[in-house]
Amino acid sequence: MQKLTFDLLKTDPDGSKARAGVIHTSRGDIETPIFMPVGTRATVRGVPERDLQAAGAQIILGNTYHLYLRPGNEVLKSQGGLHRFNAWPKPILTDSGGYQVFSLSELRKLTPDGVTFRSHIDGSSHYFTPENVIETQRAIGSDIMMVLDECPPHPCDHLYAKKSNEITMKWAKRCQTAVQNSEPLYGHHQALFPIVQGSVFRDLREYSAKTLVDMEFEGYAIGGLSVGEPIPLMYEFTDFTTDFLPVNKPRYLMGVGTPANILEGIARGVDMFDCVMPTRNGRNATLFSRNGGMNIRGARYINDSSPIDEDCTCYACRTYSRSYIRHLFTVQEMLGPMLASIHNIHFYLWLVKEARKHILDGTWATWYPGMVEIVGGKLP
Amino acid sequence: MQKLTFDLLKTDPDGSKARAGVIHTSRGDIETPIFMPVGTRATVRGVPERDLQAAGAQIILGNTYHLYLRPGNEVLKSQGGLHRFNAWPKPILTDSGGYQVFSLSELRKLTPDGVTFRSHIDGSSHYFTPENVIETQRAIGSDIMMVLDECPPHPCDHLYAKKSNEITMKWAKRCQTAVQNSEPLYGHHQALFPIVQGSVFRDLREYSAKTLVDMEFEGYAIGGLSVGEPIPLMYEFTDFTTDFLPVNKPRYLMGVGTPANILEGIARGVDMFDCVMPTRNGRNATLFSRNGGMNIRGARYINDSSPIDEDCTCYACRTYSRSYIRHLFTVQEMLGPMLASIHNIHFYLWLVKEARKHILDGTWATWYPGMVEIVGGKLP
Repeated sequence: MQKLTFDLLKTDPDGSKARAGVIHTSRGDIETPIFMPVGTRATVRGVPERDLQAAGAQIILGNTYHLYLRPGNEVLKSQGGLHRFNAWPKPILTDSGGYQVFSLSELRKLTPDGVTFRSHIDGSSHYFTPENVIETQRAIGSDIMMVLDECPPHPCDHLYAKKSNEITMKWAKRCQTAVQNSEPLYGHHQALFPIVQGSVFRDLREYSAKTLVDMEFEGYAIGGLSVGEPIPLMYEFTDFTTDFLPVNKPRYLMGVGTPANILEGIARGVDMFDCVMPTRNGRNATLFSRNGGMNIRGARYINDSSPIDEDCTCYACRTYSRSYIRHLFTVQEMLGPMLASIHNIHFYLWLVKEARKHILDGTWATWYPGMVEIVGGKLP
Repeated sequence: MQKLTFDLLKTDPDGSKARAGVIHTSRGDIETPIFMPVGTRATVRGVPERDLQAAGAQIILGNTYHLYLRPGNEVLKSQGGLHRFNAWPKPILTDSGGYQVFSLSELRKLTPDGVTFRSHIDGSSHYFTPENVIETQRAIGSDIMMVLDECPPHPCDHLYAKKSNEITMKWAKRCQTAVQNSEPLYGHHQALFPIVQGSVFRDLREYSAKTLVDMEFEGYAIGGLSVGEPIPLMYEFTDFTTDFLPVNKPRYLMGVGTPANILEGIARGVDMFDCVMPTRNGRNATLFSRNGGMNIRGARYINDSSPIDEDCTCYACRTYSRSYIRHLFTVQEMLGPMLASIHNIHFYLWLVKEARKHILDGTWATWYPGMVEIVGGKLP
């Protein structure tokens, strides 16, 4: 089975760490930098597969915690894995569930062996270990699996972050072993990415990155950022961490972020991003565009017969006006959130595609500050 | 401007009144019998225009009461009418708003001149007259407008039904005059259909039908049925009423109904139907199919990898399994109601298309009882 490999095509010659590459997987190539729409519960909320395809999505996410609870491993196995279940033929990345255990579930109890938690749905008790989250990700059949980690909150003290990080490092090793000792269920290679943690402590981030790099994975994730810390800290630690990661492996900044965050992440050497923002904001009537953000509920759009974004090729922009989409939100028709989510996903994928083009063109340094300016304004 | 005309192509030779025809409008032909998806608030709930097109929808509905309240006549006019607003290039029929005034709004006061009511949204006071509902339908730009009528509840006594019917007849005349004295706003002819009322009283139904036929309209609707009366009465009065309607004009049975109701309506000489059932039931996980109904929440579908309906060509059936759609409903993801609504609209349009084919083939009499049997079972 074809392993996951990465070709670095170009790095910005003008001083930033922005880079363009291609991740090769047995389910097709992923051109980086890339944004990965989040399909938490086996669906990118409000965005059917046809619109993900039209948007040029090359990889989507699934959430192990949610999928483990519903539909559950047995259903996933009976259906031949997540790709067949949600009709997505291209690569899928799954997180390990660790983040949701610590953010969503109640009464969790962490031990060196694993974590006990209660389902946020029905309060039932469950136990995640490095080994059984790999088992679940085998049932899912994701192309990129993630290790189980503990994600420290922000702020946290050095002692907590250090202890947490040690657990995360041990769990990474156990996940790697579990992968080596098991086989994919559906005939496709499944890569494993570990997660660099260490909160906002340079010594811990360096230790975490070096330890994981020594273990040799097919790619590396940066976790524990975008968890409430000030944005400058997020940028600082992204920048700091990528310096310790190998140039010939893809780098994934987990859970990031706004369009400006993504551009700043690219400038700091990140290749892969995921965030619920395009769909969550879409459901709340907040739309992204090449001219900045807009809240489509605004009275100014009542009679506006232009599309959300003149240059966008999404179904919403090709078909409907701002006036109409505003009306849908006003009367609370589900087509409103659907169209807004479709559009925002298109926008995010357009943004990273543009970024890639400018990196390859050698025009990143001149393009990127202006685009940050446009997309970086406070959302309405 | 091209008026609305009707070509009767064939009537069932085996004794029923089932008939196949074509309604010609300036926005294209409508092959009858036809089902018209209901787009109450300028959207068929959960079903974008692309899926209406794929389902073969030839005409959709809009609701004057709802559109008058939101987005309102001024927005509709600023956007060039409903067709441009909701991106639907084919014919649209609008009811007059009368039914919603009597079923949804509060504190209504009926006088011979019109009806005062309070909005169900914000309690604001409004006044509908035969003249101003035509004005609103001019703002909407529907291809088929309906007269303002009073729809008696079921049961009601003969005296009430008679008085109500007299108001409806006078309002029909005033609507006709209002149409003659006004012009379409968007360069397309707008036909006007009156509504035969009379509750379940034969003398009143006959009087109503004859009065309206003498006034010469481009088509005729049958109202006041499917309002809570026993199904046999609905069939009886549909049958009774169509005998008084001209053969060379389309006939529309308002608000009907289940798949079985539609087949029985066709057998009694009706050409046009509308109902919220496919979308409303879809949102509640009830799916129609060529093999009968199903509630997709059922445990039996947990591992069912087949589509809702093997022979259906809708996006849901071509793309997703029962297992997946069940999961979407279980986790309350909006893609579930969307896919279910898309499928059910496809089913309804398939059903009337099949009916038409069998009428034209001369096989209606052998096909129809079996199909009523299949679709007529109580829904799960």
